[in-house]
Order: sequence, then structure tokens, then C-alpha cells
Amino acid sequence: MTSSIFHSLLEPDIVQMIQGNDELGLREFCTALYPGVVAEILEDMEPEEAWKVLKHAPASTQGEIFPFFDISFQVKLVELVGDKPLSRIIEEMSGDDRVDLLERMDPDHVETVLRLVAQAERSDIRKLLSYPEYSAGSIMTTEYASLPADISVKEALERLRVQAPSRETIYYIYITDEGRHLLGFLSLRKLILAKPTTRLEEIMQRDVICVRVDDDQEHVANEIARYDFIAIPVVDNQNRLVGIVTHDDAADVMQEEATEDAHLLGAVQPLEDGYVATPFFELAWKRGVWLVILLFAASMTAKVLQYFDPGDGGTWMVLFLPMVLASGGNAGSQSATLVIRALALHETDGRVSWIAWREIRIGALLGAILALISFIVAYLMIGIQASMVVTLTVFLVVTVGTLSGAMLPLGLKRLGMDPAFMSNPLIAALSDMLGVVIYYSTASATVQLFTTA
Amino acid sequence: MTSSIFHSLLEPDIVQMIQGNDELGLREFCTALYPGVVAEILEDMEPEEAWKVLKHAPASTQGEIFPFFDISFQVKLVELVGDKPLSRIIEEMSGDDRVDLLERMDPDHVETVLRLVAQAERSDIRKLLSYPEYSAGSIMTTEYASLPADISVKEALERLRVQAPSRETIYYIYITDEGRHLLGFLSLRKLILAKPTTRLEEIMQRDVICVRVDDDQEHVANEIARYDFIAIPVVDNQNRLVGIVTHDDAADVMQEEATEDAHLLGAVQPLEDGYVATPFFELAWKRGVWLVILLFAASMTAKVLQYFDPGDGGTWMVLFLPMVLASGGNAGSQSATLVIRALALHETDGRVSWIAWREIRIGALLGAILALISFIVAYLMIGIQASMVVTLTVFLVVTVGTLSGAMLPLGLKRLGMDPAFMSNPLIAALSDMLGVVIYYSTASATVQLFTTA
Repeated sequence: MTSSIFHSLLEPDIVQMIQGNDELGLREFCTALYPGVVAEILEDMEPEEAWKVLKHAPASTQGEIFPFFDISFQVKLVELVGDKPLSRIIEEMSGDDRVDLLERMDPDHVETVLRLVAQAERSDIRKLLSYPEYSAGSIMTTEYASLPADISVKEALERLRVQAPSRETIYYIYITDEGRHLLGFLSLRKLILAKPTTRLEEIMQRDVICVRVDDDQEHVANEIARYDFIAIPVVDNQNRLVGIVTHDDAADVMQEEATEDAHLLGAVQPLEDGYVATPFFELAWKRGVWLVILLFAASMTAKVLQYFDPGDGGTWMVLFLPMVLASGGNAGSQSATLVIRALALHETDGRVSWIAWREIRIGALLGAILALISFIVAYLMIGIQASMVVTLTVFLVVTVGTLSGAMLPLGLKRLGMDPAFMSNPLIAALSDMLGVVIYYSTASATVQLFTTA
Repeated sequence: MTSSIFHSLLEPDIVQMIQGNDELGLREFCTALYPGVVAEILEDMEPEEAWKVLKHAPASTQGEIFPFFDISFQVKLVELVGDKPLSRIIEEMSGDDRVDLLERMDPDHVETVLRLVAQAERSDIRKLLSYPEYSAGSIMTTEYASLPADISVKEALERLRVQAPSRETIYYIYITDEGRHLLGFLSLRKLILAKPTTRLEEIMQRDVICVRVDDDQEHVANEIARYDFIAIPVVDNQNRLVGIVTHDDAADVMQEEATEDAHLLGAVQPLEDGYVATPFFELAWKRGVWLVILLFAASMTAKVLQYFDPGDGGTWMVLFLPMVLASGGNAGSQSATLVIRALALHETDGRVSWIAWREIRIGALLGAILALISFIVAYLMIGIQASMVVTLTVFLVVTVGTLSGAMLPLGLKRLGMDPAFMSNPLIAALSDMLGVVIYYSTASATVQLFTTA
């Protein structure tokens, strides 16, 4: 069954069960399906509704479902869950997943909840929380399978059965001494193929490829991808095994890094959450910073032009032509970059008018800020009347550029084409054409206005 | 041991072993280390040298090492390997990896080699080759572990031991009927935790999440990432299991798609190989196509400007100002995009001067082509003398823009900063400033030239 079928089949049933307060039915829904599928269906609801479903599940199931929610959805949910049930969920979540969540929660709330968490789990959490962000330590889990070197294959399999329920993976087994030093590695495949009487040290692979706990997370993801590993061991500087990073976390890191690079390339400060989940003013800030820097760079170009072409009489318009055009192109590149990356990550499904409305407002806000700065720059160079033309044009060009940068990729997608064809330079080229029309129309309108007055 | 240590330790030894023709030593080197590590060391050599090492390994080891090479390195290697040994390597490679290689080889060579491949493998290869590019079928492998529903856990483990050596993974087991219809799913973890007498149908998970053989590879990768799977089953339209896609192939697809989007966003036709591996003229073509399209778009802006500002006397320069500046910015955005993505994928390590020299030549070639087109466009609008200024400026701006777009990110990297800070709009802004200087200097130089003559 392909996963999208679940949605249409199940959503009406669940709404009915919530209305009828059918506790057994809701519990059955949470436990019978794969946790990732449950999360996907619940994430389409409001957090309040989702919790009405999830609260009927046992804590162990809640702990399995939680990590499949987007992190911003998890943060919203924990506000609705009481401290006691939340501490149970956190106990049940796997090591790396709960640290991801706790790092994003309000610190006071974290302290309150942690006090209710069992001692063993709590010290594990505090330790993982202490590793710096973006390090191997911050994405690893301590729930790895490990065995001593001097036992037989038969005994190893028996011990693995005991470890299995609480380990993130038992397919990679790490061989350690009493001091937890990493001695070797065995795959479960090799283990079940070996003779029961063989000792692990005879078949284990020595010289294990590992990473250090303070290595950058990008390095860890690259090592896993390069060697096609399911997990990679993490050691401290005494070569003691402290955790593992699994392939799924490595894939998440790769996606994050690709998103961060894409955003930076489009001159947006990287967003922590997705494009849709980022709040309005945070999004405006992360774009505005770069637009202002770029506006100052463009005003340098105006200065350079003034040196070559003093721009008296009608030709003052030339000085600010590159700045005006660049403002529209830059704003458009930002929107296009954000929307194209969000489309690739399937964040935007069916939200076209929501995006358009948000982009118009962000465009107007950013346009107003840039217009104000442009006014000051232009006033100092070319006087009041001319600078008003520049100011008004920058406002219009940025607003229109922002909106069309978001809408053109969505339009291409609707036509069945690759939205990424709407490249930054192409957006800039279209914006240039429009910018010229707006600039010269504004100028002649203003001239008429001043002449009439 | 972190992987980079292998290099410095082993490379001198290997060179010595090649010189001394130490067959046993080279064979030992190939078989003792993890195949991914062997591949990494060999890939730093010329293909001829690498084959001198690898030819001493048994075919099964060769088949394990081969897939870890970059695909363009694999293609170079197969030219050096005789048809008979190559057919053995292909027999030993896993299903999806060999198809990746065969799809990139010369079709005549493929036919010659396939005739030497064992019948069973050959028909498997032909079948996988028949799936369209970018489909689930094109990235799946047929080497999955499957079992019937009505056997006991004990018997299942025994059968798995038989299947294990030839399967891509045995950690996910698919339950099928005699017609290969997918009935359920079991993880090896669940299997070894179950009581030996339990029948599989009692513990298997029904409603398996799967993809169709003609689904897009991006969809497949997203499903694996969404549910944190190690593998996902692929079924045909009769729900018959035809293959699996594993997590490592999904990660590759995600990287490919991110690279493709990044290239498109920077207005480069996506490269099949990496930036470094792509030949000069192919790279020039994939950039030139977009630069020419963007030049025509910019010449429209010149037309629009001419409508508002007829540009007689000195002001003809204004008409082509946006086009001249955009050409430099676009060329620079392309280089920056390519270099930043290549840095993220660790393709460019230590090749700064090689990159600089290639970018100068590509910049000059693309500059010459764009200059020629600009000349025609400008000649039709503003006459011979003025158009020569435009032509010369476009050539210089594109050459300098291309080079600096590549060098600025490498410089940031050298300073320990994130190279992606050199965003497309920032490159365009810097290029604008430089473009103005070049444009006006060229103009005044040309005027002097014509005045003197």
C-alpha cells in the first residue's frame, strides 16, 4: 500500500472517533499503524486535535510517534501535554530524538520536565545536551549494541536478544573491552552466518572506521554516505565508544546542509525550521539583513557611476538604475530560492494562496525598509525630488519582485515543469525588465505631479 | 581509526608494492581493508595505477570495491580491464550498482561484455536496464531477502543464512506468496526476538509501505527518509515484489537532486558528473546555453529602456548598462554555484589553481560567444562604434566575473568561513561595481582611439 492511500481512508474515521470520544478506537489507530504513518496523518491536524488522538496511546507508542513529527510541531505539542505524561514520552523516545526536542523547548520547561524523568535517562540526556550544536555528539544516540570480544557467537546472539528492545539498531555490533574502548566491529549478518562456537574476536573487523565526538556533523554524514553504513561509531579522545550516529540522522543532516547552502546562495540567512514553519518576522529579518547589505553594495555602484557620469539634468536616473534593478532581482531571488527548496522538501503542498499572501506582506515590509534607506542614500546624492522617484521605485520593485519570485516557481510546478528552472539569474532578468518600466513610469508620473503642483 | 589516517599510512607502501610487483601484498591490501577505504585510496591514483593494484584481488573483492568509485572513475577503469575479467566483476557487483555502471558505458562495449556474463545475471541486468532513468526500477536491486508466510521463525533463520551472502540486506525481510505478491514485512530484529516456533504470518507487519516500480526516484528517496527505513520494497502494478531500494541509494538520490536544484538555481544545466569530473566543453555548453538565454532577456531590457529613454548622444550607454552588468553577474553566479556545491561534496580538495585556470579559459570562451551576440544586438540598435564598446565590455566582464565567482568562495573557505556566504546576489553586486568601471573605461578608451584615428 503506498502511503498516501492511508490519508484519504483514515481521516474521516479519526474525526468521527474524536467526536465520539472513542478511546479504544483512537488507541487502536495509534498502535496498529507504522509510527511514521500515524505521525504524518496527525501532523495534518491542529496540534490540539492531534493530542486528542495521541493521548490515548501508551507512552511507548507516543515515544515512537513523536520523533516523526516535524520539530516545530513537536514543540507546539509539548505545550499541550502535561508535565508528567511528557516526562514519560521523553523517557520512551530514543536518545538523539529527545535531545533534538529538548534543545528546542523553553529551558524552564525543560528543567521542570527533567525533574520528573527517571534518574538514568536524565543523566544520559544531560550528557548529550552538553555536546556543542552541530557536533557528532549532538546527533548521536547512546543506545548502541555492544559485546565483549571473548564470547562465542551463540552467547553473543543470546545477549543481543536481551539488548535488542532498547537499542537504536542491533544490525551493527561494536566490540569493546571493560573500559569501553572500541576494539572491533561485527555486522549481525556476519554474526548469524558464523559458527555458534566461534569467538567474536576471531571474526570481528578491527580498524573500525569511526568519528570523534567533537567532529562536525557534516563530516559524520559524509562518512556514513561514503561507506554506505547503517551507523557509525562515535568515540571520545581516549577511543572510548560513547555513541553511534545512524543513517537516518545522517540523511537529515545532509538535507539540512543542502538547505542551508541553498538559502545562503539565494542570500537568505539559513532558516532553522522550514519555509512554511518559520514565523513572519523571523523570515522577514533573515531576508532583510541580506537585502540591506546588498543595497549598500549597490549604492557603491551608484557612487562609481557618479564618478564616471556626473549625471546632471535628466541622467541622474542612470546612477540609480543598477541599484533599483538589483533590489528587485535580489528580493525575487530570495523568494524563488525559498519556494524551490520548500517544494523539493514537500513543505508547501497546496498552500499557493497562503504563500502569495505572505509574500506580498513580506515584500511590502522589506520594500518599505529598503525604500527608506534608498531615500537617504539618494537624497544625499541627487536631492529631494529625484530621490523620491528612486524611493517609490524601490518599494514597488521589491514588493513585485518578492511576489513574483515566489509565484513563478509555483506556476512552473503547476505546469508540470521543474520549478528550479526559475533560476536566480532568470528571476533577476525578468525583474530587470519590469524594474525599468516601473522606474521610468514613476519618474514621468512624478515629473507631471511636480509640474502640475 | 578515523579514515584519513589510512591514506598517509598506506600510500607509500602501495607505490612500493606496485614497483616491486608484489602480487601477494597488493592482494592483501585489497582484501584486508573495508572496500570503501580501498576505493578511496585507489581513486587518488591514475586509473592505470589503480588497476595495477586492483587486478590482483579476487573478482568478488573487485565487485565490492568497484561501486565505491565515483561513476566517472569506474567508466575510465573498465576501459583498462579485459572483457573477461570485467564480466566477472560485473557478475559479482550488486544489482543496482552494475546497472549504474552499464548505463554509463559505451553500448557496444556493454553488449560485448554482457555476452560473457552468466545467463541468470544477464537477464537480471537486461530487466533492470529496461526501467526508465530516474524511476524506482532504475535504482533498485533485485537481491532482497524474502520468505513465505507459513514457516516458523526457526526455519526462517535457517533459510536466511542461506540467502544472506547474496542479498543486499537481510535486515528487512519481505513475506511473499508463490506468485511473489507482497504480503508482509519483518525486521530481522523482530525475527530474532520472536519465539522459534512462531509462524511468520503471526508476527509479520501487513500493510507494508512500498513504492511502485515506475515511481520517480525522488519520491522513493523521500519515502525512505520520511520513515527512517533501511530499505523500501518496490512492487509492480500487480503488487508483485520486484526489488528493493536501500537507504544508501536513497541518500545518493537526495544528494543528486539537491545538486541538480542548486545548479538550476544558479542557471547551469545540471551536470551528470561532478564539477571537477565534467569535461571542459560539456561544462562550457551547460553554462553557455543559459547565459545566451539570459543575454536575450537582458537585450529585451535594452529595448524597453530605448522606449523610455531614446538614448541619443552620450546616453546610448544607458541602454546596455543592465545587459552588461547582468552578463557579468550571471557568469559569476554560475561559477560560484558550481564551486560552492563542489566544495560541499568534497570534490575540489586542493585544486585551487587547477580550478582558476579552467575558469579563466571557460570565462574567455563564454565571454567571446556572448560578446559576439551582444555585438549583433547592439549594432542593430546603436551602430558600429558604440556597439564595439558593449562587445568588448561583455567579453571582459564575463571573463572576470567567471573567474571571481569561482575564486571568491574558495577564498572564503581558505579563511575558514562558509563559502556559501558568497551568494549569487552578492557576486552580482560585486560584479556590477566592476562592470561599471570596465564599461566606462572601455568607452572612454574607445572614444580616444576613434578621436586619435
